[in-house]
Amino acid sequence: MLKKNRKICVVINNRANYARIKYFLKSAKSMNKIDLQIIVGASANLNRYGDLSKVMKKDGFNPKYNISTIVEGENPISMAKSTALSIIELSSIFEKIKPDIVLTVADRFETLATAIASSYLNIFLAHTQGGEVSGSIDESVRHSITKLAHIHFPATKRSKKFLLNLGENKKKIFLTGCPSIDILKNEKLNLKKDFIQKINNTKTNGNLNFDQKYIVLMQHPVTTEYLNAKSQINKTIKAAMELVKQNYQILWLWPNIDAGSDIFSKEIRKFREKNKKIKNILFYKNFSPEEYAIILNNCSCIVGNSSSGIREASYLGIPSVNIGTRQNNREISKNVINVNYSVQEIVGAVKKQYNKKFKKSYLYGDGKAGYRMAKILSNCELDIKKELNYLKN
Amino acid sequence: MLKKNRKICVVINNRANYARIKYFLKSAKSMNKIDLQIIVGASANLNRYGDLSKVMKKDGFNPKYNISTIVEGENPISMAKSTALSIIELSSIFEKIKPDIVLTVADRFETLATAIASSYLNIFLAHTQGGEVSGSIDESVRHSITKLAHIHFPATKRSKKFLLNLGENKKKIFLTGCPSIDILKNEKLNLKKDFIQKINNTKTNGNLNFDQKYIVLMQHPVTTEYLNAKSQINKTIKAAMELVKQNYQILWLWPNIDAGSDIFSKEIRKFREKNKKIKNILFYKNFSPEEYAIILNNCSCIVGNSSSGIREASYLGIPSVNIGTRQNNREISKNVINVNYSVQEIVGAVKKQYNKKFKKSYLYGDGKAGYRMAKILSNCELDIKKELNYLKN
Amino acid sequence: MLKKNRKICVVINNRANYARIKYFLKSAKSMNKIDLQIIVGASANLNRYGDLSKVMKKDGFNPKYNISTIVEGENPISMAKSTALSIIELSSIFEKIKPDIVLTVADRFETLATAIASSYLNIFLAHTQGGEVSGSIDESVRHSITKLAHIHFPATKRSKKFLLNLGENKKKIFLTGCPSIDILKNEKLNLKKDFIQKINNTKTNGNLNFDQKYIVLMQHPVTTEYLNAKSQINKTIKAAMELVKQNYQILWLWPNIDAGSDIFSKEIRKFREKNKKIKNILFYKNFSPEEYAIILNNCSCIVGNSSSGIREASYLGIPSVNIGTRQNNREISKNVINVNYSVQEIVGAVKKQYNKKFKKSYLYGDGKAGYRMAKILSNCELDIKKELNYLKN
Amino acid sequence: MLKKNRKICVVINNRANYARIKYFLKSAKSMNKIDLQIIVGASANLNRYGDLSKVMKKDGFNPKYNISTIVEGENPISMAKSTALSIIELSSIFEKIKPDIVLTVADRFETLATAIASSYLNIFLAHTQGGEVSGSIDESVRHSITKLAHIHFPATKRSKKFLLNLGENKKKIFLTGCPSIDILKNEKLNLKKDFIQKINNTKTNGNLNFDQKYIVLMQHPVTTEYLNAKSQINKTIKAAMELVKQNYQILWLWPNIDAGSDIFSKEIRKFREKNKKIKNILFYKNFSPEEYAIILNNCSCIVGNSSSGIREASYLGIPSVNIGTRQNNREISKNVINVNYSVQEIVGAVKKQYNKKFKKSYLYGDGKAGYRMAKILSNCELDIKKELNYLKN
Repeated sequence: MLKKNRKICVVINNRANYARIKYFLKSAKSMNKIDLQIIVGASANLNRYGDLSKVMKKDGFNPKYNISTIVEGENPISMAKSTALSIIELSSIFEKIKPDIVLTVADRFETLATAIASSYLNIFLAHTQGGEVSGSIDESVRHSITKLAHIHFPATKRSKKFLLNLGENKKKIFLTGCPSIDILKNEKLNLKKDFIQKINNTKTNGNLNFDQKYIVLMQHPVTTEYLNAKSQINKTIKAAMELVKQNYQILWLWPNIDAGSDIFSKEIRKFREKNKKIKNILFYKNFSPEEYAIILNNCSCIVGNSSSGIREASYLGIPSVNIGTRQNNREISKNVINVNYSVQEIVGAVKKQYNKKFKKSYLYGDGKAGYRMAKILSNCELDIKKELNYLKN
Repeated sequence: MLKKNRKICVVINNRANYARIKYFLKSAKSMNKIDLQIIVGASANLNRYGDLSKVMKKDGFNPKYNISTIVEGENPISMAKSTALSIIELSSIFEKIKPDIVLTVADRFETLATAIASSYLNIFLAHTQGGEVSGSIDESVRHSITKLAHIHFPATKRSKKFLLNLGENKKKIFLTGCPSIDILKNEKLNLKKDFIQKINNTKTNGNLNFDQKYIVLMQHPVTTEYLNAKSQINKTIKAAMELVKQNYQILWLWPNIDAGSDIFSKEIRKFREKNKKIKNILFYKNFSPEEYAIILNNCSCIVGNSSSGIREASYLGIPSVNIGTRQNNREISKNVINVNYSVQEIVGAVKKQYNKKFKKSYLYGDGKAGYRMAKILSNCELDIKKELNYLKN
Repeated sequence: MLKKNRKICVVINNRANYARIKYFLKSAKSMNKIDLQIIVGASANLNRYGDLSKVMKKDGFNPKYNISTIVEGENPISMAKSTALSIIELSSIFEKIKPDIVLTVADRFETLATAIASSYLNIFLAHTQGGEVSGSIDESVRHSITKLAHIHFPATKRSKKFLLNLGENKKKIFLTGCPSIDILKNEKLNLKKDFIQKINNTKTNGNLNFDQKYIVLMQHPVTTEYLNAKSQINKTIKAAMELVKQNYQILWLWPNIDAGSDIFSKEIRKFREKNKKIKNILFYKNFSPEEYAIILNNCSCIVGNSSSGIREASYLGIPSVNIGTRQNNREISKNVINVNYSVQEIVGAVKKQYNKKFKKSYLYGDGKAGYRMAKILSNCELDIKKELNYLKN
Repeated sequence: MLKKNRKICVVINNRANYARIKYFLKSAKSMNKIDLQIIVGASANLNRYGDLSKVMKKDGFNPKYNISTIVEGENPISMAKSTALSIIELSSIFEKIKPDIVLTVADRFETLATAIASSYLNIFLAHTQGGEVSGSIDESVRHSITKLAHIHFPATKRSKKFLLNLGENKKKIFLTGCPSIDILKNEKLNLKKDFIQKINNTKTNGNLNFDQKYIVLMQHPVTTEYLNAKSQINKTIKAAMELVKQNYQILWLWPNIDAGSDIFSKEIRKFREKNKKIKNILFYKNFSPEEYAIILNNCSCIVGNSSSGIREASYLGIPSVNIGTRQNNREISKNVINVNYSVQEIVGAVKKQYNKKFKKSYLYGDGKAGYRMAKILSNCELDIKKELNYLKN
């Protein structure tokens, strides 16, 4: 008897992972040939970031496994140990459910665990967003996963070219665009009253007027500059202070779990406590992928070092001020200004960007990446042997 | 006060690791600027392969830590879990001793643990034998480590070129040659009586006459062909049977711990039990690096899929028959014949090679690699930021 | 040559651990025969509870190892996994430093890891507070450790008797009193201005008047009633609400990391956010052992289910209202009223206790426990064989 | 809707575990109210001890999970780490399958992992063979598990009494007898030709004549006397040598994985290699529970320190010579002579016992334990609160 279904296992480690992969999951779920199995781990499985499982269930997805893998500390050693725990858990699960394909998303430190568990168990590994370029440990992790993965879904032409440069097999590289764009294309991104109310209710500090313009601020630690974390976030805090004094409204989103997050969080909290009376800044933690897309789509400028300031913002035409090295060398559209860790540069760039509106850019895709990926994975050959393409030249 | 010493931590995971790195250790230890710290883990820390610590102590090295990281099973899942345990242990140790540099050797599955623990902790990572090419999971692991490492010591010109192709920084790539050649250059490799006696005493089965020619046979499982392990080793067993019938002498060395080793061992043991009366085959487990070098230097042909059949044998001019995919695409000298998993091909190639003697080849180095590496590491800049060299073109 | 020193390794897992053992550490450190080695792990190694290492350094202690062992989640599964990580780390450290004695404190879930690592490695294990009685998983953990430990330092006569009942060797049981009393005896416990200021500054919510009476409230989850956590904490929250309405001042201390802590924290945070304007309740997280002792010594009543409400409060003569099952069957002095999870009962008991002052009780010791323990451990025989005392009858 | 089934999860860690629990599994499987879930871990999941899964499948059991938890080394540290890995794996599985009851067998070091994972997750824990007495770390582990378990199935009256002494609830202690006796009662235990042939074929060394009498020898390391392992096993080896010289036949069964097994194995192997020509000693590794029962039932004397020499042998009336401290203070019938680690004592006792035949003893049960346990577990209350029974007196 023929095996009908191809079992594809997707490991989702945080909210951004989910946002990026949601439309792939939708497409995969709708295809007869695919038996989709979702594993929720790392910070995606922590309630303190809001219950992602609930969000996923509302979207029609029922995770098969939830795994506890985050070692507390938010420092380099907890990153290493969390990765190890993740390998232990995932290898047992892969051995149990025997997927034909494992899909890992992008480049956070925990995703290397998925790549190791899968490739060591001789399971065909698919990877999104290979070939991109950034700073932080993500840069190393991304390319390290590329060398373990068996099929690649780059987001941009340059990324595709870089994957070829990295020695990957031309036939295993598919330029699909970034699946994080899919959500922007497929959902309505206007700010509704009840959502505004929700934000202003879960507030810590201010109370924003969403009839007026507002800035989205989100800055993650750069793990490879761990020792500078305190200084870096304080530059941004001072810039934010300057901006709120000049009556800009700021919606500040909390950082990821990475080495340095505890330091970032501590400094942000100190700042928040000291400035309880300021009303035009508001700190926010838990958003669903759609909520984040709406927040971004309606802001006047995104500031910080999230890749969404480059990726999603370019598609939406939102002005972006990118701080520091985390997105080093990443491909950008015209909407982005890169600045150093400097109060003056940050404030200056925000003012410059604030009133602009940019044309939609397709640099990171057209919003159909998820469907393309699902289609390809439902049919591709599952060959786990790898060979540098340099040998053929 | 100036920090005088540069603390370099070397993780040694198995006997081959040690053999390859011994002359680096010697050089490093002799340099004032280097504070050498050795960690012994994985199978190097298991007594069933002979007490490597004893060997190291005799050589003047005193490991700072011994770690227990091998999960039993010798299958894909135990490879993944052993890697995870290794990350847990090494990250704690690195945090404790805070090395300036971590050096990881080659490409076995556990070495990726060293690379993750080091790079996630922002410790400068040095890697030997990057840019080489082979089959098995080693192929993926090697390049994956390259993408985490900060400095590279390739063994060959092609490897150096491939590291550049892989996007590594030209200034961080040093063609040193392979340190495994150092031992061949620096030690006396003649067969002495007491060593012959030792081999014939620890014998299981035969009793070789070392005045006559003999074949060295060593075949490791190919982890990515795990399901074919039984069939593959049995081809070699049958070829060995054929050869001993024709009065060839065989010295068979035991396989590594890799997914499939249990299957290999079981088949070899079955064969051994059934053929207790055959006197011209002898199974051998524990050798020091020097002992192995001597055995190899004095044999008439090496058969199997150990990289030493390609690397060390080329320097020594020993004929080599390389079986199957494990050394896929590896650079070879004239001394190597590649054959498939086929009794006929193996036997045929051995007969062809048996009486030959080849010229010394410097493909894999001139025997000064360890010294060069130590010299470079004692002085190099310790910058942990990485950037694909494609961006500069 | 005679071995001069006895190497004693103490594992400290949280602030309460440290408070209880501080005077033992002082005594041990001062004794020539003892080489004291401190390991800081679990929540004691997490900054979000304030930097305990700093406190310890100020007290003259320099931890030899800091280990990251807490898996995030604050639920039953993270308790189990944290214990496992702790075993992995501690067994490596014990193997490295080879202590003659390991001392583990009391009964939190992570302490069982210390006991297993030590006893499996054949290291003599000392245990404080064995033979006591409570609810929660602590009850099982405590007696489970007793059965692995080689020497016991019970706090009370009943505890000593229960250790004998449990089959332990009479010669290995020493009634020392509880070392948590030592701190109360040896330090000045008056409220100073700068400390009052510090509390009111790190405030979330209120601003207490320390010239007036105040209640200390601290409630930890009962792990074995995990599913009732939300309901249980809300009873206390409502009671607190009732009391603040009636103008009682409350200083609320944050719960431990245990299964259910996340639920407790969430409910407390919700309550806090909704009642920002109430000024006579204040939430407080980080206190040193001395600070806690001072807070307790000067309050009018302690409410909740901390063992300090029974143990330390009895020595200080502070009225105590003990809620629910966590301290089930624990020995109490006259200062304690036990109540159910009931708003009415809690409020009623607080009012009853509020104006009382009780006589100092020596039920849990006279404040010299730490010294006695150090003295005994510096001399005792280190025999790791165990035998139920029932056999001798 | 009513929940029909009670989900009972049994963790089997080695062959002896399985032998002891097989008739419980049979009974449980046949009961409608029980949904039986089997997990195979530790050495039960290692092929080098023969494929237990195959044996279990033949018996009609289909393990739900196989877990890899043994860290190589066979020393104290690998015992600790294996226990930790086991906690990590089991807690994930328990969380996934949510059993109503977990059953753990006896007292090997890994069983404490089952007890921790279960009790920390608030799952009702059943334990067999509590209250017994022995030496080695098993003695501590057994009582430690008792203090975590919620229901107890002691094998003997004294064990039941000791469980009461240990403070356990009278209503939760059921004297069922030891389930290891069940197999002896329910299966035919005569030596068949094909089984004899199988033994003589898998032989290493001798070739026994099963028409004549033979001795069964099995000695495990005493973990708490780890440093004496080499000396201890060599006493037994010398005694064996003496006996074979005097023409006794010996069937020697391989030791368990415990701290010291590697040392034992090494010494036994050395002895075996040196005495290849001796024909009346034979080493044997892999037996099913039934095969072991047959071997034992037909031997003239069992020698060593396996509990089966005391437990099963007493039921079968087989003479037994028990060496050293491992079975310290265990209840014995008349069939047992205890001796020290002394060549002379061992040889003397064997000669004394050799021709005896003892009456069947019911000390360890009547062969219906498994059924009783299943019956009780299908109906008992599942209350996880524990309270020392001393409080009621």
